[in-house]
Amino acid sequence: MANTTVKSFEIPNFAFENGAVIPSAKLCYLDINPSASKTALVITCFRGRLQSTLNFADGALKDHRVIVVALFGNGESSSPSNAEGFPESLRYMDCVRAQKELLTSHLGLQSVDVVVGFSMGGQCTYHWSVMYPEFVRNAVIICSSARTSKHNYQFLEGPKAALENAVDFVDKSLATSSGPSRGVCAFGKAYSAWLTSAEWFDEEQYKSLGYETLEDWDTDISSKGYTGWSAEDLLIMLRMWQAGDISTAVPSNDKSLESALSSIKARVLLMPCQTDQYFRPDPNEREARSIPSATVEVIPSIWGHIAGGGANPADTKWMDAKISAFLKAAS
Amino acid sequence: MANTTVKSFEIPNFAFENGAVIPSAKLCYLDINPSASKTALVITCFRGRLQSTLNFADGALKDHRVIVVALFGNGESSSPSNAEGFPESLRYMDCVRAQKELLTSHLGLQSVDVVVGFSMGGQCTYHWSVMYPEFVRNAVIICSSARTSKHNYQFLEGPKAALENAVDFVDKSLATSSGPSRGVCAFGKAYSAWLTSAEWFDEEQYKSLGYETLEDWDTDISSKGYTGWSAEDLLIMLRMWQAGDISTAVPSNDKSLESALSSIKARVLLMPCQTDQYFRPDPNEREARSIPSATVEVIPSIWGHIAGGGANPADTKWMDAKISAFLKAAS
Repeated sequence: MANTTVKSFEIPNFAFENGAVIPSAKLCYLDINPSASKTALVITCFRGRLQSTLNFADGALKDHRVIVVALFGNGESSSPSNAEGFPESLRYMDCVRAQKELLTSHLGLQSVDVVVGFSMGGQCTYHWSVMYPEFVRNAVIICSSARTSKHNYQFLEGPKAALENAVDFVDKSLATSSGPSRGVCAFGKAYSAWLTSAEWFDEEQYKSLGYETLEDWDTDISSKGYTGWSAEDLLIMLRMWQAGDISTAVPSNDKSLESALSSIKARVLLMPCQTDQYFRPDPNEREARSIPSATVEVIPSIWGHIAGGGANPADTKWMDAKISAFLKAAS
Repeated sequence: MANTTVKSFEIPNFAFENGAVIPSAKLCYLDINPSASKTALVITCFRGRLQSTLNFADGALKDHRVIVVALFGNGESSSPSNAEGFPESLRYMDCVRAQKELLTSHLGLQSVDVVVGFSMGGQCTYHWSVMYPEFVRNAVIICSSARTSKHNYQFLEGPKAALENAVDFVDKSLATSSGPSRGVCAFGKAYSAWLTSAEWFDEEQYKSLGYETLEDWDTDISSKGYTGWSAEDLLIMLRMWQAGDISTAVPSNDKSLESALSSIKARVLLMPCQTDQYFRPDPNEREARSIPSATVEVIPSIWGHIAGGGANPADTKWMDAKISAFLKAAS
């Protein structure tokens, strides 16, 4: 993945869906290969930073200008942790409207050839496709969904409760200055078993990542891995995820999911992972039936959800080939 | 299910696996239909009480004397919440040895026709079958495993961390006197999405239980449903579950799981549920290959793990028929 400088773009007096207005909303982004004629927008995922986001710039998108943009709340773009007076709640529509400003007003684009997103990035891509159907020619939605399922919603209640009831979240004076708080680590623990799959644990695949024991893996995944993450940022993104639903983003009287899906003009590639425990293939298969032009390619992997984020090189290669073929068929 | 009086049996100077000895260990149990000639032992599950344990006494076990016994740590039998000086850790071997005392010394039995257990009760049944192979003629193991999988272990780390880091667990003086603590409710939240299945949530099956919304269901499942449960009891049982492994219960030099499974003399019926998110059918299929006489019957249900505990009447009827047929084939 290309490593480029983080740029930023400020939008004055940005109004959020919940009514709050902040004097300046900042979007952080990477602009990779800016002279290419085709354009791709890649959106970060939950707990994703710009530089570690899988962007396919060296593969399927090598002939694209690749703009990687950080979701509000990720700690790079405006977030509770870095913007005073940041609103209490966020919606994907906020992120999409700001990103549209970046692409049009700042970068002078009239459309993008492809929007790519994994997980929350995929949900944001879905929201793009219904909010600005003329702007998005192709959408690649990886391990994600058009509407957060009730199962996914309920799973997220776990890490949320672990954090919100933690001793050093309730009493902030107890938080240590170094390393993640007890609350954030409890969040990480309650999240950890969902990340991959039961088969992945059976096969002790954490060893393929260099961990000798499950406990070693857990220490990184549930604790150290959260270094630098603010509790408030995690929570506002989590609630945005829970509220994810493209039918609420459509300016129509018919608020059904099917109606929202049928309004999409982009060619859509849905890539769920076979063993993803929360963004599952079944809902993608159902969604595809209502999208005018949709293809579903199921990642054949035991890496579960994080296969889609680039956790396993073989899966990344597989996805890259599928995206290449999908984009080639468009031209 | 028959409703009978809770009886109890005290074992003086009971020595636990971890070396602790308590002056008196109490086992609570039900003795249903005590004049029947055949005998069944039914063991409670995690967070299970005697009177609400599915016991098949009106169905597959109607011609059996059904002895339902509470695991140590469940709050009825000796537990951190009711026994001063209770050990810091428990193993299934402790429960099995005490239950054997109950059945032999107190009830005068030389063997049991069938041991039945769901979930942790199923793991305890597995331990019975390897610790006293001559004592158990048939074993019915529902939504369980011979060894807690690493995935299952890691999932349990979530509720555990939610509880152990909670403000009113760390500082007990903050606990309210009525209702479950914040820590126990956070535990419940982190557990809740695992109970059933993604398909169950998709179909909004909580409505079939009389809940109008997911939130209504959640309130009962994650909070009210824990009324009367002690944090310490939940934690000691959870750790016993995490340590569940029949290969550690066999008095042999060969500590492999296969070797332990092959030592079982009972006819075994394994009944995993198709959609169980943590006690899955695959490991049961693998286990069955090493057990001299095993049958696997997969519960065809979207109720996930709790199908095996009697959450859905249709599944209970299905299991009852399978147990009847299994026991009939034995005689």
